[in-house]
Amino acid sequence: MLGKYLDNLRKRGALIHNITNYVTVNDIANALLAINASPIMADSEKEVEDIVSISDGLTINIGTLNDRTVNAMIKAGKKASDLGKIIVLDPVGAGASKFRTETAEKLIEEIDFDIIRGNISEIKTLYKGEGKTKGVDADISEKITEENLEDIVSFAKELSKKLKTIIVITGKIDIIADDKYAYLVRNGNPNMSSITGTGCILSSIINAFVSANTEEKDRLKVVTAAVVAMGIAGEIGYKNLLENEGNSTYRNRLIDALYNMNGSVLDEYANYENF
Amino acid sequence: MLGKYLDNLRKRGALIHNITNYVTVNDIANALLAINASPIMADSEKEVEDIVSISDGLTINIGTLNDRTVNAMIKAGKKASDLGKIIVLDPVGAGASKFRTETAEKLIEEIDFDIIRGNISEIKTLYKGEGKTKGVDADISEKITEENLEDIVSFAKELSKKLKTIIVITGKIDIIADDKYAYLVRNGNPNMSSITGTGCILSSIINAFVSANTEEKDRLKVVTAAVVAMGIAGEIGYKNLLENEGNSTYRNRLIDALYNMNGSVLDEYANYENF
Amino acid sequence: MLGKYLDNLRKRGALIHNITNYVTVNDIANALLAINASPIMADSEKEVEDIVSISDGLTINIGTLNDRTVNAMIKAGKKASDLGKIIVLDPVGAGASKFRTETAEKLIEEIDFDIIRGNISEIKTLYKGEGKTKGVDADISEKITEENLEDIVSFAKELSKKLKTIIVITGKIDIIADDKYAYLVRNGNPNMSSITGTGCILSSIINAFVSANTEEKDRLKVVTAAVVAMGIAGEIGYKNLLENEGNSTYRNRLIDALYNMNGSVLDEYANYENF
Repeated sequence: MLGKYLDNLRKRGALIHNITNYVTVNDIANALLAINASPIMADSEKEVEDIVSISDGLTINIGTLNDRTVNAMIKAGKKASDLGKIIVLDPVGAGASKFRTETAEKLIEEIDFDIIRGNISEIKTLYKGEGKTKGVDADISEKITEENLEDIVSFAKELSKKLKTIIVITGKIDIIADDKYAYLVRNGNPNMSSITGTGCILSSIINAFVSANTEEKDRLKVVTAAVVAMGIAGEIGYKNLLENEGNSTYRNRLIDALYNMNGSVLDEYANYENF
Repeated sequence: MLGKYLDNLRKRGALIHNITNYVTVNDIANALLAINASPIMADSEKEVEDIVSISDGLTINIGTLNDRTVNAMIKAGKKASDLGKIIVLDPVGAGASKFRTETAEKLIEEIDFDIIRGNISEIKTLYKGEGKTKGVDADISEKITEENLEDIVSFAKELSKKLKTIIVITGKIDIIADDKYAYLVRNGNPNMSSITGTGCILSSIINAFVSANTEEKDRLKVVTAAVVAMGIAGEIGYKNLLENEGNSTYRNRLIDALYNMNGSVLDEYANYENF
Repeated sequence: MLGKYLDNLRKRGALIHNITNYVTVNDIANALLAINASPIMADSEKEVEDIVSISDGLTINIGTLNDRTVNAMIKAGKKASDLGKIIVLDPVGAGASKFRTETAEKLIEEIDFDIIRGNISEIKTLYKGEGKTKGVDADISEKITEENLEDIVSFAKELSKKLKTIIVITGKIDIIADDKYAYLVRNGNPNMSSITGTGCILSSIINAFVSANTEEKDRLKVVTAAVVAMGIAGEIGYKNLLENEGNSTYRNRLIDALYNMNGSVLDEYANYENF
């Protein structure tokens, strides 16, 4: 049962330092607050070491990167590695430009990430240095399906082994894998792809879950709990949409659903399996 | 009938690269997703050429410009010009500072814009190098009215000829003009000016409409369809407001209305004329 | 009765230049529009002097500062001081990093602020150069309570005298103080801390209230009116929440409540006292 990890987070809180893009940053902040985590955003080289030192976790999201912020990411990541903080990478749009791909590779080289979360295209890019990107919110050519599931899980385990980090691949089915084990999550709603930022939100939420549950040795389960929580929020948020409402209100109702979720709701709606 | 242009966009999609301000960027992303376009935001000189190359259109919005992003705008714009991508300029706040006015002028000099959209004050600034700006969300002294309509349409046509681009002037009545023809759009709701970003959203939506309808030779009609769609979204969104709701919820209901709109709704509500 | 200050703002408007963070900037813009102020955001050194010159007030918020924007803040602040504009400082996260603390101190040294607003931790940092910060949205260790109220009011008055500016400390009870007098405001709702940006919004709203009421010599009352308005918006917004709604929708309902508020609503709900 995964609900207890959310309950722990509700009891304990977690301060999450985000170096992230300016597109979805507000949603990340409100989503963290929704689950009783505290967001702090800081991307100046002059302060990221101080900020990460007082934080429980660091999430690096390359959604709108530039030279200045990439330097801050590396500095923050190294400090966080030294201090044993939980570190998550969201390689937004890796594969869409040489700069993003190379930055993602450089970050992985220099920082000990605990978890990397992306869509299949982004994660494949980290592996092969290729992968096609159709914007940052969708990838039509490469989807996770029941048919290719086994292949993708094997790939995720292999990449996890190579990069020494938990790999989360989100899509119609979500995959959470380390080098040996994997969970599949079938929560969520297809309309979540009509909202910008659901991936970014999840990456920061994963950090909050893990940061508040460091005593749990089976970290894969804690990460899975976060992925399940996000999927359930997508389901409940969609169910709560009223007539004439669309993707903008859906964003709010999704975050609202996170706000109103507790461990027993999570356990009731959870749809995941060991694979 | 303009609805078919929206239906084409719903079928085909369009990847729109936005170099834009950090105030309304999230709304732009969700509005693009609402009409089945895909947003990608990237403003580093190191990647804008890559990003624009995989995109269908580029929208440049100078709402919160700085030296770094202006360089990226020019680089992206030149590449987009070379590749024949659809390029839209939103000269937010032109006239409010020398830097904005000069940047808008420089962008126009170096980049082949297909469409420029602004309020009357911003567009006048492009013409004269003057114009008064009352913030970026309103202009009290210079409004489009039934009385000055003919003059403003003539001015728009003249500017279109001078700058070799379609000119869109939005206000109480919206004007879409090339050097010979013009459309007037009377859709919309006066309360749209109480939401930040309706202009920014429209500029990116215009790009999506045009990018998904490149086979249509009468581009003025496609741009008009986008302006009509935005106006109708403002009408429907306002009608859908419940008791006690205000401008913040109105923003969501407007984007929701875009999400739920199809070609036949557009044709039913469209209120435009050839002028 | 404080309601008249809001009515004046509704009649007169106010153009507020914000140099602010990219997390809550959209909410600041919509909140200013909600009370009939006009937002303008600009943070390039090349234009801040022009922008502040056409504005009624300048709000500096250090929520996501960097070297580039700090220079712009100083340049804008000096120009605003010269021109006698209303200037507000929101020292977001002061105490959380050396860079933030030193920047806040530097800004105070170089700029004549009319009002400084923060939580107790941030404001204490300005006084002592110490203070613990738990993120920017909460401070658990140092809260304003009925018990320590007198001490904090004395401290606020002393700091006001030292810095020659009105001090606003927000929390469960809000304190508005100059060197001699203080008001306490007991409006608001504890769930406001589950929304990112309520503090940022208030700082800019205070500016709008003061900018639209410069003829009022008792400025402390005008600032108090803004604090009361924000608190009432938090109360009404919370009351308007429907079943299953949470912090994300609460944000919208709070701004909506500002949008629908007038002077008589403000006077009806106001809960403040001279202390």
